[in-house]
Amino acid sequence: MFIGIDLGGTNIAAGVVDLNGNILHKKSVPTLASRLADEIIADMASLVDDIVAAGGQSITAIGIGSPGSVDANAGIIAYAGNLPFNNVDICKMLETSAGIPCVLENDANLAAYGEHVCGAASGSDVSVTITLGTGVGGGVVIDGNVYNGAVFGGVEIGHHIIAVGGEACSCGSYGCFEAYASATALIRQTKAAASLNSCSLMHNISNITAKTPFDFAKQGDLCARQVVSQYIKYVAVRIANVINIFRPNVVVVGGGVCAQGDYLLNPLREATEKFVFDKMHTNIVVANLGNDAGIVGAALYAAKMIREL
Amino acid sequence: MFIGIDLGGTNIAAGVVDLNGNILHKKSVPTLASRLADEIIADMASLVDDIVAAGGQSITAIGIGSPGSVDANAGIIAYAGNLPFNNVDICKMLETSAGIPCVLENDANLAAYGEHVCGAASGSDVSVTITLGTGVGGGVVIDGNVYNGAVFGGVEIGHHIIAVGGEACSCGSYGCFEAYASATALIRQTKAAASLNSCSLMHNISNITAKTPFDFAKQGDLCARQVVSQYIKYVAVRIANVINIFRPNVVVVGGGVCAQGDYLLNPLREATEKFVFDKMHTNIVVANLGNDAGIVGAALYAAKMIREL
Repeated sequence: MFIGIDLGGTNIAAGVVDLNGNILHKKSVPTLASRLADEIIADMASLVDDIVAAGGQSITAIGIGSPGSVDANAGIIAYAGNLPFNNVDICKMLETSAGIPCVLENDANLAAYGEHVCGAASGSDVSVTITLGTGVGGGVVIDGNVYNGAVFGGVEIGHHIIAVGGEACSCGSYGCFEAYASATALIRQTKAAASLNSCSLMHNISNITAKTPFDFAKQGDLCARQVVSQYIKYVAVRIANVINIFRPNVVVVGGGVCAQGDYLLNPLREATEKFVFDKMHTNIVVANLGNDAGIVGAALYAAKMIREL
Repeated sequence: MFIGIDLGGTNIAAGVVDLNGNILHKKSVPTLASRLADEIIADMASLVDDIVAAGGQSITAIGIGSPGSVDANAGIIAYAGNLPFNNVDICKMLETSAGIPCVLENDANLAAYGEHVCGAASGSDVSVTITLGTGVGGGVVIDGNVYNGAVFGGVEIGHHIIAVGGEACSCGSYGCFEAYASATALIRQTKAAASLNSCSLMHNISNITAKTPFDFAKQGDLCARQVVSQYIKYVAVRIANVINIFRPNVVVVGGGVCAQGDYLLNPLREATEKFVFDKMHTNIVVANLGNDAGIVGAALYAAKMIREL
């Protein structure tokens, strides 16, 4: 058995996972990100003890998914956004506490790995996972290996310019995909359209979320339909760019927008096909591991890496 | 020794190449592309005979670089633009005529492979070559392997949207990199700027080429400088997109524009750095095999593939 840990800004989630990707036990605790790294790692060790005690299985290895930039070979988190991990030797520290070998990877890469090995991209040689959340993340898996490139920096699916000189992005650049296709961007687009269209059913909605335009589009609201259609076009452009260079078997779309299922997928496939060079031979699907992708991916990645050591 | 053949729309160029990428003999003949595929292949066989006879070396394998879409495993050219090769079993046909094992790949991939193995990206683990010619081509080499993806279609560096809803592209889509950064696009941009700016030294030039804006920018012409600067920005966006997802050691820029050397590279590096997520650890260089990249890449690729068979 293997343990996957998804180290998030809000919660640390961990699970005992078998080689088929089934989660046998899982538990999460608040990250309380303002603490010292040592304290957070001590809680990760307790969490591991708890789920091991609950299941009684022997654990071969632990996989840790961290936000931000990691040095996977060295087992070091270089920096992790809001978390207090700056050049922290997390693998060695957790190995010492838990007595189990640890491997580390970026969390988005591990969620992509989970979808590749036993999720929506299962059975594919090459898959690209794009997660549309508050920001946009994702990962590329080629022949069963997480693709990390040859130099430091990691795969940044969201920071890919689709509109030269376009919308300002959180990264400081302009025109990035994230600035058009994150949930944050969709909410901004919806608010702008709703405020300009007094005939729209969304005009007086005060509590607009990323689900709002989909809900109202389904009710026939023209303004909501236009917002959804334009949003799908942005996502389609990025997916076509991924297809034109990676030619993956599968592109997996994750994040809250996935709940739309075929209402999203059917027009998204149609729009993407228009931008793909020559014919499209790639399937576009929604993620199916949900919030567990990080745990499952981390555990199965640990299983893979331990075998290869 | 190995033979590399670069099958072009105008000429068929072939060379005998050693394992260090040195061309020992080379020769080219006109393709005369309106002929039947059989006739063109017969000329390729004669060309092989000629260069073998000239050098007297024993040839282990032949690599063929073809435009368009190829099925490398099967040795079949699926289609090749203006050339009359539609599902032509070129490897088997040339093997029969020349009596030497043949391997096939897309020409842009082989030029990228040549630069990777013994050109401007020599010594790198991951390199991406972008060739800015009449169109835009290129290839990706990962750990010494030409990256081709998991499904049919090939890597299309040029057909990657950098401006949603932007300029019409030759592929039928809109906003592709090729529509902004090919030599054709640069000429169009220069003509447009020159015609609008009566103060520009380029205003009355009738014979504008892709070299014109660089020539006049060096003379201090403001309009030419603006054209060059905007063109470099487009190229920088594409290179940053490549870096943000492939994190290659090296991006190689090829095509006629390379002749500008540091006049292109210095501002290109500076512009790219602004669009790269986090820090840039990738070197940007100009191609150094020139027109021979196809021959060298094809020959060395044949050497690699024959060893692996």
